[in-house]
Parts: sequence; structure tokens; C-alpha cells
Amino acid sequence: MLNQRVLKRFLLYRLVLIKFQKLGFIKVFSYNLGKEAGFKAEQVRKDFSLAGIKGSRRGGYDIVNVLESINKLFKKDGERLVILVGIGNIGQALINYVEFKESNIKIVAGFDLDPSKYTRKNVIPVYPPDRIQEITRKYAIKTAIIAVPEASGQEVCNQLVTAGIQGILNFSPVVLHVPENIIVNYVNIRNELESLFYFN
Amino acid sequence: MLNQRVLKRFLLYRLVLIKFQKLGFIKVFSYNLGKEAGFKAEQVRKDFSLAGIKGSRRGGYDIVNVLESINKLFKKDGERLVILVGIGNIGQALINYVEFKESNIKIVAGFDLDPSKYTRKNVIPVYPPDRIQEITRKYAIKTAIIAVPEASGQEVCNQLVTAGIQGILNFSPVVLHVPENIIVNYVNIRNELESLFYFN
Repeated sequence: MLNQRVLKRFLLYRLVLIKFQKLGFIKVFSYNLGKEAGFKAEQVRKDFSLAGIKGSRRGGYDIVNVLESINKLFKKDGERLVILVGIGNIGQALINYVEFKESNIKIVAGFDLDPSKYTRKNVIPVYPPDRIQEITRKYAIKTAIIAVPEASGQEVCNQLVTAGIQGILNFSPVVLHVPENIIVNYVNIRNELESLFYFN
Repeated sequence: MLNQRVLKRFLLYRLVLIKFQKLGFIKVFSYNLGKEAGFKAEQVRKDFSLAGIKGSRRGGYDIVNVLESINKLFKKDGERLVILVGIGNIGQALINYVEFKESNIKIVAGFDLDPSKYTRKNVIPVYPPDRIQEITRKYAIKTAIIAVPEASGQEVCNQLVTAGIQGILNFSPVVLHVPENIIVNYVNIRNELESLFYFN
């Protein structure tokens, strides 16, 4: 079982490997990859070994093979389904996010308290939040995005956990309480920006 | 000089303190704050001491005082100006982001290669990227957001550094190369979501 830190390193490795591939490279050494991704060569080799990715000391790692292994880790071979709670500015941007489409990530349904969002003009169907459990179970979805205001973050989170969601990407500026087996990744855009003003 | 890790902990402490305040609390102990924010009490005390924030062993920390000190760290007393490069889905969401407005963060100008974005219908003025340096210097801006596609991320970053930008919030899925004195914070939405599919 790989933890979130290791997993996120793999996703960075992938970014770099795709870049190298576009530059025409076929093989890569752990020190090239590590340097570009911001980690030591030993870290790269250790991570690869954890995931069962093999290279040779002389030739390095085959980029195509490594990318295949990384994609497999994250189930990229199939369509990856997710639901989205909160259709505000961020939610709307995510619905139209090209990077998701390119990555086989499909937002199956959105949920919002505002009935004006339940229109057919949306690219995805939008339902009231009390239908979270029904839709989640219908499509056997395990992953959800929370993009609601701070005040409703924890309540939505509880609904998702009850519905069987196991991984949450949280844009709501609140620290969520979840059972131990649930993974929460945080994206706090304001905090990431605000910390930069310290240096101004 | 506090580093980005410490600074981001302070921003989490602030989230929790505001929550406690709304619940009617006036004082807080390091272990209450630490528990809710996900850190040890010793960590909280160490961070507070680094920032010169004082409490008493018996009464704990005064929430109003701590919040004031944290806001001061991040210059929240004045308007905090930032420019935005890339007016796509994410850029557009940031322009309308309520959390920025609530935090005295003002996007002064946007930049995009697409002339159809240079319309007066925008909430902020949008210019071609070759005006980055001019606008940045005019308003003495030190902080920028990159929300362009992967392929142009590094080029935009170079332009920003030349223009005197010192802190960058990067949404572009690429590892940026910058001089040592420039701080880059990354928000990689796809990676944060994708790492959750490992557990599916």
C-alpha cells in the first residue's frame, strides 16, 4: 500500500516523464528524473522499487514502461468516475476542466442546493444534495470533490462518507473530520496564494 | 524568516481559530488548536513562538490576538495585489472567487494570448502577455498566478520573473525552474484528484 506522499511523487514523475518523452527521450536515469522533479535519485529508485518498476543500471528506465506502470497505479486504463458537490465558480471550472477529460476522469453528476443549477444547460446533470447516496451507489462511485462554501463543508463530507465515498478532494476551506479509512486531499487556493504575501 | 511549511500551518491555524471564534470561544490552548488542525501541541507552541505570538500557560492564547498576528504576517491589513496569467476555466473562476474578495486579495489585471478576452465585459482588465512587465511595474506587484496550459507554463514564468515577480501560484501542470529567491506554490488539481483513484 503506497501512501499519499509517495503517490503524489509518482504523479510528478509522470509529468516530467511526459515532458522528456516529448523532447524525444526513450530512456531515463533516476538522477535525470529526480533532478527535474525536485527529488534525489535515491528517492526515485526507492519509489520505483516500491511500485515494482524495474530498470537497468546501464540503460536506465524505459519511459513508456514507467508511464504504463504509473497509469496502472491510478487506474487510468478505465474511465474514472467522480461526483462533484457544489456548482459555484470552482465547481463550474472543474466541469469544463480539459485536464480531467484528457485523463479519463469523468464527473458523473453534480449536486447543489440551488435549484437554478438543475438545468439541462449544464454539461453534467445536477441534483439536490439529498440524492448523493442514490447516485453514488447507482454508479458505484468511490471518489468525490467538495467545492461548497466553508459552512457546509463538514456536513457534505458526512453525507459523502455515509454514501460510501472513500476518497475526497476538498476545495472547501475547512479541516474535515473523517473516519480513518477515508482519504482527504486538500486544495486551499486562498492559503496557497496568501502564504506568498508574507514575502511581499 | 518563516518558510512555506510554517506559513501554511499558520494559515490552517487561522481557519481553525475562526471556526472556534464562531463557536463562541475567546481563548484557545495549543492542544485544542493542534488537535483540530492536525498537528501536535508542541508544534503549535513552537510555531507561535517563532512568530512572536505569546500566550499564558494557564489561560492559553487569546484568539483575537493570535488572528491579528497571523493576519499581520500575511499583510492582510492592506489590499494585496496580484496579477493572473491565463483566463481559461480556472482563471475565470479565480476572477470571481469570493474567498479572494473576502481576504483583501485583488486581481489587478489578467493576461491572455486570446484577443477575444480583451473585452470590457470582464470584471478585470485583460491584456496581451507582452504587457506583463509594464503593468507589474506600474502597480509594484510582487505576486502572480499562472493558470495557462502546460506548454506555456515555463515561458510565462520567465516573463514574470523578469518583470520582478517574487511569488508565484502555479496551476499549470509543470515543474517550474526559477531563481533561488523566487517562491513557487503549486496547485495541481488533477494530481490531487488522481492520487485518490489508487484506492478505488
